[in-house]
Amino acid sequence: MSEPSSQLVIGFDGDDTLWHNEQLFADTQSQFCALLGHYADPTTIDTKLLEVERRNLSIFGYGVKGFTLSMIETAIEISQARINARDIHEIVALGKRLLAHPTHLLDDVAEVVEKLARDYRLILITKGDLLHQESKIAASGLAENFWQIEIVSEKDESTYRRLLQRHGVGPSEFMMIGNSIASDVLPVLALGARAVHIPYHITWAVEVAATDNTDFPTISQLTDLIDIIAAWRAEVDG
Amino acid sequence: MSEPSSQLVIGFDGDDTLWHNEQLFADTQSQFCALLGHYADPTTIDTKLLEVERRNLSIFGYGVKGFTLSMIETAIEISQARINARDIHEIVALGKRLLAHPTHLLDDVAEVVEKLARDYRLILITKGDLLHQESKIAASGLAENFWQIEIVSEKDESTYRRLLQRHGVGPSEFMMIGNSIASDVLPVLALGARAVHIPYHITWAVEVAATDNTDFPTISQLTDLIDIIAAWRAEVDG
Repeated sequence: MSEPSSQLVIGFDGDDTLWHNEQLFADTQSQFCALLGHYADPTTIDTKLLEVERRNLSIFGYGVKGFTLSMIETAIEISQARINARDIHEIVALGKRLLAHPTHLLDDVAEVVEKLARDYRLILITKGDLLHQESKIAASGLAENFWQIEIVSEKDESTYRRLLQRHGVGPSEFMMIGNSIASDVLPVLALGARAVHIPYHITWAVEVAATDNTDFPTISQLTDLIDIIAAWRAEVDG
Repeated sequence: MSEPSSQLVIGFDGDDTLWHNEQLFADTQSQFCALLGHYADPTTIDTKLLEVERRNLSIFGYGVKGFTLSMIETAIEISQARINARDIHEIVALGKRLLAHPTHLLDDVAEVVEKLARDYRLILITKGDLLHQESKIAASGLAENFWQIEIVSEKDESTYRRLLQRHGVGPSEFMMIGNSIASDVLPVLALGARAVHIPYHITWAVEVAATDNTDFPTISQLTDLIDIIAAWRAEVDG
């Protein structure tokens, strides 16, 4: 990678910012609801699963393996322990298929990331199961565009502070791009850095953030990022 | 942390080098065998579980969550799908107890790590579930002694090469300490760095390495490390 022309650093989230993710979870969850169709309706199952996921988050963390274990717990609780072993095996198989699913980039990602990598240092900051995130990064074909890749267990203010310190980046030099207001935008703004929100068409309930903060741009297509970053650079370079 | 007096860097493995781990897995596995006592004897169950773990390693990676999913698969296969949902719930609970288990340091660890941290830069290099490893590091009380902490999905030659490059450490300046010949010793020697083996009283079958390489010291107590490192420093400064 050649030396970028700017000292500014751009952070990208992975799941649902660079590649599809939440849609795959939603599809898996539909299959899970169909499997439990004898015991409850989809709304009841979805509500129960979210409750179990939230309960388990502090011990399992993010990612497909914990999601799979939470689906198994939900199935046992919803069925009042009547679910049979073959159906539980099918839930494990659903989790495995999710882990093995191909990585599909979102629109314009390859073009925009490659263009920005010529002028800026890019950091990929993503959370979830370590091996699964590494596999998706490798499958994305984008890895060589990133100056640094960081897979973390939580994306809060202290995580971003630690990462910026580790790589010697000041908050005024950093802008984060992502689909989650809770994980990619608010903790970054709290540090005094900038953030751009690019919504995915669905958001996991755990990532939904209620906020009055409007101190960030929201874009509908990743190509809009080019102008935002050009304006930022012009402002900083003065 | 004050500036260390030496440029030499010492890497420590976590599980079974700094704190107990494999014994907790073994205890969990005994409870798992007892739960499946109706279906098979412990040797059959242990053999099957290892086979399932190996089969799943490339998709689940290391750590308790994947181990728990492999226990569930093993239980279903061993019982020919006769196991009931309550017993599967108990397997999930075994996994959760393993994740929540207190972190107990091995003998002499706190003393030796604190002493070495005064003169050397220490890196903790550990593999497993990201959140679980972070929780164990926090619970160990050792975190502030480490210059860098790296949680990785695999400990092979390319991982060590990447980490040394990332932190600007040459192979001749690096020594790794750990209980696994396969993960802590051989890949480090292959890079031209040094390694010290400190066996734990049990070794997971996946970590057992057949090797003719004897180009590393094996120590029985961590305090023996002090003299080995002093000799290394004298040789390098020499």
